Amino acid sequence: MKENHKTGSVYLHDIPLARAWDMLIQALETADLWKPLAAEEVQLENALGRVTAEPIWASLSSPHYHAAAMDGYAVQAAGTSGASDRAPVTLRIGPDAVYIDTGDPMPEWADAVVPIENVETIEETVDGPAQEAIRIRAALAPWTHVRSMGEDMVATELVLPAGHKLRPIDLGAIAGSGHDTIHVWRRPLVAIIPTGTELVPPGTPVRAGEIIEYNSLVLAAQVETWGGAATRFPIIPDDFERIQATIVEAAARHDLILVNAGSSAGSEDFSAKVVQKLGKLLVHGVAVRPGHPVILGMISRSFGTDADMTGIEVPKQEDAHPGLDRALSAHVPVIGVPGYPVSAALTGEIFVEPMLARWLGCPPLEPLTVEATFTRKVHSSLGDDEYLRVTVGRVGERLIAAPLSRGAGVITSMVRADGIVLIPAGVQGIQAGETVSVRLYRSLAEIEHTILALGSHDMTIDLMAQYLSAKGARLSSANLGSLGGLIALSRREAHLAGSHLLDPDSGEYNLAYIEKYLPDIPVVVVGYVTREQGLIIPPGNPMKLTGLADLAMGEITFINRQRGAGTRLLLDYHLKKMGLEPEAITGYGREEYTHLNVAAAVASESANCGLGIRAAADALGLDFIPLFNERFDLVIPLEHYQSPKLKPLLEMLDDAEFRRAVDSLAGYDIRPMGSIIAEMG
Amino acid sequence: MKENHKTGSVYLHDIPLARAWDMLIQALETADLWKPLAAEEVQLENALGRVTAEPIWASLSSPHYHAAAMDGYAVQAAGTSGASDRAPVTLRIGPDAVYIDTGDPMPEWADAVVPIENVETIEETVDGPAQEAIRIRAALAPWTHVRSMGEDMVATELVLPAGHKLRPIDLGAIAGSGHDTIHVWRRPLVAIIPTGTELVPPGTPVRAGEIIEYNSLVLAAQVETWGGAATRFPIIPDDFERIQATIVEAAARHDLILVNAGSSAGSEDFSAKVVQKLGKLLVHGVAVRPGHPVILGMISRSFGTDADMTGIEVPKQEDAHPGLDRALSAHVPVIGVPGYPVSAALTGEIFVEPMLARWLGCPPLEPLTVEATFTRKVHSSLGDDEYLRVTVGRVGERLIAAPLSRGAGVITSMVRADGIVLIPAGVQGIQAGETVSVRLYRSLAEIEHTILALGSHDMTIDLMAQYLSAKGARLSSANLGSLGGLIALSRREAHLAGSHLLDPDSGEYNLAYIEKYLPDIPVVVVGYVTREQGLIIPPGNPMKLTGLADLAMGEITFINRQRGAGTRLLLDYHLKKMGLEPEAITGYGREEYTHLNVAAAVASESANCGLGIRAAADALGLDFIPLFNERFDLVIPLEHYQSPKLKPLLEMLDDAEFRRAVDSLAGYDIRPMGSIIAEMG
Repeated sequence: MKENHKTGSVYLHDIPLARAWDMLIQALETADLWKPLAAEEVQLENALGRVTAEPIWASLSSPHYHAAAMDGYAVQAAGTSGASDRAPVTLRIGPDAVYIDTGDPMPEWADAVVPIENVETIEETVDGPAQEAIRIRAALAPWTHVRSMGEDMVATELVLPAGHKLRPIDLGAIAGSGHDTIHVWRRPLVAIIPTGTELVPPGTPVRAGEIIEYNSLVLAAQVETWGGAATRFPIIPDDFERIQATIVEAAARHDLILVNAGSSAGSEDFSAKVVQKLGKLLVHGVAVRPGHPVILGMISRSFGTDADMTGIEVPKQEDAHPGLDRALSAHVPVIGVPGYPVSAALTGEIFVEPMLARWLGCPPLEPLTVEATFTRKVHSSLGDDEYLRVTVGRVGERLIAAPLSRGAGVITSMVRADGIVLIPAGVQGIQAGETVSVRLYRSLAEIEHTILALGSHDMTIDLMAQYLSAKGARLSSANLGSLGGLIALSRREAHLAGSHLLDPDSGEYNLAYIEKYLPDIPVVVVGYVTREQGLIIPPGNPMKLTGLADLAMGEITFINRQRGAGTRLLLDYHLKKMGLEPEAITGYGREEYTHLNVAAAVASESANCGLGIRAAADALGLDFIPLFNERFDLVIPLEHYQSPKLKPLLEMLDDAEFRRAVDSLAGYDIRPMGSIIAEMG
Repeated sequence: MKENHKTGSVYLHDIPLARAWDMLIQALETADLWKPLAAEEVQLENALGRVTAEPIWASLSSPHYHAAAMDGYAVQAAGTSGASDRAPVTLRIGPDAVYIDTGDPMPEWADAVVPIENVETIEETVDGPAQEAIRIRAALAPWTHVRSMGEDMVATELVLPAGHKLRPIDLGAIAGSGHDTIHVWRRPLVAIIPTGTELVPPGTPVRAGEIIEYNSLVLAAQVETWGGAATRFPIIPDDFERIQATIVEAAARHDLILVNAGSSAGSEDFSAKVVQKLGKLLVHGVAVRPGHPVILGMISRSFGTDADMTGIEVPKQEDAHPGLDRALSAHVPVIGVPGYPVSAALTGEIFVEPMLARWLGCPPLEPLTVEATFTRKVHSSLGDDEYLRVTVGRVGERLIAAPLSRGAGVITSMVRADGIVLIPAGVQGIQAGETVSVRLYRSLAEIEHTILALGSHDMTIDLMAQYLSAKGARLSSANLGSLGGLIALSRREAHLAGSHLLDPDSGEYNLAYIEKYLPDIPVVVVGYVTREQGLIIPPGNPMKLTGLADLAMGEITFINRQRGAGTRLLLDYHLKKMGLEPEAITGYGREEYTHLNVAAAVASESANCGLGIRAAADALGLDFIPLFNERFDLVIPLEHYQSPKLKPLLEMLDDAEFRRAVDSLAGYDIRPMGSIIAEMG
């Protein structure tokens, strides 16, 4: 298929998102598919989360008879008239008063209930034998403590409208109104077909070039979350015939087909061609980032009648959804989902969710949207809608949104995202300090609990996040380097910053930088750890390195940290002291953002030396040449230091278990932890 | 058991909610049950919504090799140095450049990818035979368009903390980090035992005194929503031995037992006695409203070994949860859940949800809380925390919270509730206009879409709600009567009010009242319907009524509407005109709030005549004596009339289908619908 990108036959042609949706809706309308799919009758006990297909009208009043509202005696209100403390009224049990439990039907002659606690039972002898009686000391109005028929619902009344997603309480109201089954829109059946010769299922040992196939896991879980029923097909290799046969097979039993990957213009991308052959290719490429190589198409289900063209074993649906065939339309939309995980998940949100919502007769999800202050300038492509993942927290009065990795391959950016900022096509980017709308992935309550730590990366910050989460607090950290952290504090965009900035003049850590960058903000510098910095090298030290002086050896490929990182400053400080020119070091210009990424570069042999902490070398089984001990402090503005939000974090510094956990990591010394190093400003 | 309330042996003794929780937590701690239950290993594909029992550390880097980030040619960056438009560089395919798809591993010698769209393929003849080659016109930095190993995650890195509820995207990240199974906290197993001789299952035809048992449906759905697995037991009649045997049976296989009803002090209330016999009764009665007859207890599971004491068939759990017995504690908490549906559902929220959250290792639910202006003065018992159901909408700038029915038996008040206002013990109530905190049951987006119609009740308002919901708008109506609606508008607490107020002087509807009650607010009076008002009477007119004059006949029991209702004003107007004294009418003092409730009173023979609309009589199969035709208008402040929020409602007045639906109801004339009757103010 390499000729594709030469001939341009099925090449990407990005169109705006709104236009893509218009074309999709038009095609769905033509196929009579832009509406709820079909109703089915379900038992109430299976109806949680389903969407009503018709209004529920009460077929029974509730209560359906006049009922005692309290435990007590049913009486005629008229007979209690005049009763008072001074002039109690006596009513004979039997003819005048009958014991009644809450919920019991009122005797026909009675129209009020005297609560049991307002009654004295006595023996009375009026004429004839002794008679049990009650004495009451207050008159009752008619219908006191009686739930009259229909108090809750009157038969024929509207209980719930159509298009309502059923919550627990709704099931009770429906049952109480006289129904035990209801009509709900049937679940859309979604086939998810992962394609790619390079794919292997999770849990398989992988070799270079093999990719763990997990998009189908994410897409299936999304579909379930949105009210559909997903079928995950086995991985289909890149083979036009087999992909076509599988799509045909899936079309026979599903309302929607998601073909994962195979939607870009690479040499093994068959989805567009298959859709073109089986039906109509509507869209190939949408101007959204991440996610643009999306395919939208509509195929004819009649192809689905030639069953078993494939020989591929696919999950059977008959048992799970009996008798649904009659409810299937003659056409099936197909979405070619891009292969990068962020693109795939966003394609789910952008295309699959609104389609399922339509089929389920309810409005599409509307995430809570908040206004937040954006922390960093970002550029965005003019031609695309960009979906920027951000982490969000409240710092002082303001909500702060900090951008996360923009890579379509970085699934952790979605995992860590608190929300999405949409940069529309035609907008060149966002300025630092600009107010943006964030569509939240988390509840506002979670956001309000979030402690934002921007600054230097340390593995024990992750560990602290782990311990804090067990206490119900959330620590969200983004790695900006030590200097970046101080600058974030100066802009009031974080609650604290990890910092290990060596001042060349004093040999002291952090304080000189804080004076310079945070002149106006009172801060508390809290001790955290000292840690070993040194050279991270392959096991056995094949290059026989001994220290920084060896970096300029011709054979060495170094991997550096980004500008502003404490480790970078440390390196530059010592290089300068030693009179070594950065240009003399191969790889000085290649930057990674964390110690672990530096170690990973060494482990993968794309570099054979980096400067970083011992724990990172240890984690990946690398060797380590210790060079320096440095102090890593927590810089905390006084207002946050004193705030309840940071209390769990400060308490954690005294937590024996956490301290033990950090102490057990190689290269860490926890002696400074929790001490007050300085109060400044 | 009637002696209970005489001897006081197991009588209600309400204690504050916080104290009840303290006692419960203490008992759970003693039983080693105030912590997550136990971990179990699940396949990732079954892990959606489960809670991680331990942190997930990456066991594999992602990518786990250096991978092409684009489709193109893998090259050495050094070999592209100096390339430009003027001086393109040619690289031989094979030795210098190799075609590569996105995701493919980079050749060992390569460190950059030239995107396919930046390449010209040519034939080149340097020495020897013709050689395919590519020409490029820009130099590349090393590692351009390469996803280096660990770009997303580095092995050993924290992917997700413990105590995290898994979302679709998380499953992908976990799979990508090298896992296919994970440890999650096992689901708490909750037994739900409905007790009561009067109970019948949904779908059973009911006689007076029989109650449809649906609390177990609601509680089970709550448990599922909160991450537990519920077992609904069959209805157990009020029999001490059978209830005890069933609790013993349930204790053998569950972590928590909910016994529904049987928790108040009525004659058939055995729960407390059973708990006392099987273990320890901790709390009997909590000072919350609705819901106070709650029982909290702890029983010993050892009772569970004598199986089959009961002869009652109970759902078996073995297959659903194999091998769980070892994970069950020696003790089982029991909650006696009150029988009224609102009390039952709130007991779920107040006690069951936080316990399940603890067992699942995650913080309890924290509903979104907003500040709103309260519309009406309410009194609350000083001794109790009251959970007041409210409907919420945004009117102008303010969020408005209007109280719904406070009856514990009124499940529709929970169905219609947008949120809960907690009136704490020690507070006597809420003033109209006071700012209150509302814990929302719905998303803010839904609240923002809500049109608040307060005022007169008409059945076609429900119908309109039904039609609007299909358009994604929400109409929330509360019945305050016509006058109440105008007063709500004057306080800016509603978007519109239905009104049918006859002015005795002019014979005109509404306008004089609007002038009087809304002097300062510009409003548009929009025509809606005219409808027949008349006497709602039993079928066949057994009392031979002919008109209002007959109401003073001794034999008639009337059912009235509340003060401020248009129908009440209509009645009073005509009674006065006829010189009839209200005192002469039996039942004049008994008020209902809707036409349907008036009809229900007649249908249930608690009254034999009421004034109301024909549609209400028709709905319940009653007879009707038409007396008047009245106009029912929609009174809409100009600012709302012009707002986008009301657009769907105003459009509905022109909607052919809706008009037809109203027209087809008996007694309605839609000719006024949508006309502008007046613009005032």
